[in-house]
Amino acid sequence: MNFCSACGASVAYKVPTEDNRLRAVCTSCEVVHYINPKIVLGSLPTWQGKVLLCRRAIDPRHGYWTLPAGFMELDESTQEGAARETLEESGAQVRMGSLFAVMDIPVVQQVHIFYRAEMLSPDLDPGPESLEARLFDEAEIPWDDLAFRSVTLALELFFQDRAAGAPSDRVHSVRL
Amino acid sequence: MNFCSACGASVAYKVPTEDNRLRAVCTSCEVVHYINPKIVLGSLPTWQGKVLLCRRAIDPRHGYWTLPAGFMELDESTQEGAARETLEESGAQVRMGSLFAVMDIPVVQQVHIFYRAEMLSPDLDPGPESLEARLFDEAEIPWDDLAFRSVTLALELFFQDRAAGAPSDRVHSVRL
Repeated sequence: MNFCSACGASVAYKVPTEDNRLRAVCTSCEVVHYINPKIVLGSLPTWQGKVLLCRRAIDPRHGYWTLPAGFMELDESTQEGAARETLEESGAQVRMGSLFAVMDIPVVQQVHIFYRAEMLSPDLDPGPESLEARLFDEAEIPWDDLAFRSVTLALELFFQDRAAGAPSDRVHSVRL
Repeated sequence: MNFCSACGASVAYKVPTEDNRLRAVCTSCEVVHYINPKIVLGSLPTWQGKVLLCRRAIDPRHGYWTLPAGFMELDESTQEGAARETLEESGAQVRMGSLFAVMDIPVVQQVHIFYRAEMLSPDLDPGPESLEARLFDEAEIPWDDLAFRSVTLALELFFQDRAAGAPSDRVHSVRL
């Protein structure tokens, strides 16, 4: 950040009064600009035991497989955002389920939140951010071609839970 | 947002290509400025069955009681941030526990995440953001003088769980 988004003057990095870390502070209107981590929302959509993955048509990780996920927008809940991303990226109609995982990834300044999702039909209609979308049995998961560590971990936890007969509302809290 | 924080030119609100909502886009360098919800991290610190609350020395809700909580910073996990806020606001030394609740509050563009925390001693040393900090039995909780709805709900859920003998790692997922 170089300029104040409120008044357009340049910013300087300094520790505001009663604060304890460097912030971008406007040299003219003195507004403090806070920069905070972002939330990524995703879902684990399933249909008859298979898991829905999308192959990315955008960078980063173009061509790699991911669970439907994306940045949380204003004016939505985490569950609504996960449903929105699922529809946008795969065209799947889903009934959103319980919270599945909260994943801290401080190295990229993100928190990833995943929900379970029950597909209402196997019909898919991937949007412009996906090259394709399809359902995978556990044995078919393209482990070497997954886009993000959080996706790999979500799938590992999902199949571990299924094998162990874990409660359907179990929530994982992990740091990557 | 009126000006581009990268180059200082004015921004215009338009829907970028391949996007579906209005964004602040720089009229000069064309950077798209995304605005996303923020994460508030809090803890439920306990000592011998009592809960730690802090009375706010800052706006909003100056003078009202709250669980230790504040905005997530860069380069920390959600649990680390909850511990940081607990120390800053109360001076309590705690062992952070399991994830307690994820609360969606879209009306204020926030997601509040609470962790359980076990106090290592009853010693308190409230920082400049708190007028005072003290431990409360359930019967003493100042329900009418709590600062935020998420704090009220967290305390209600906590005491409900305790009365019901709920598992100590139960996670609440709610929308306010």
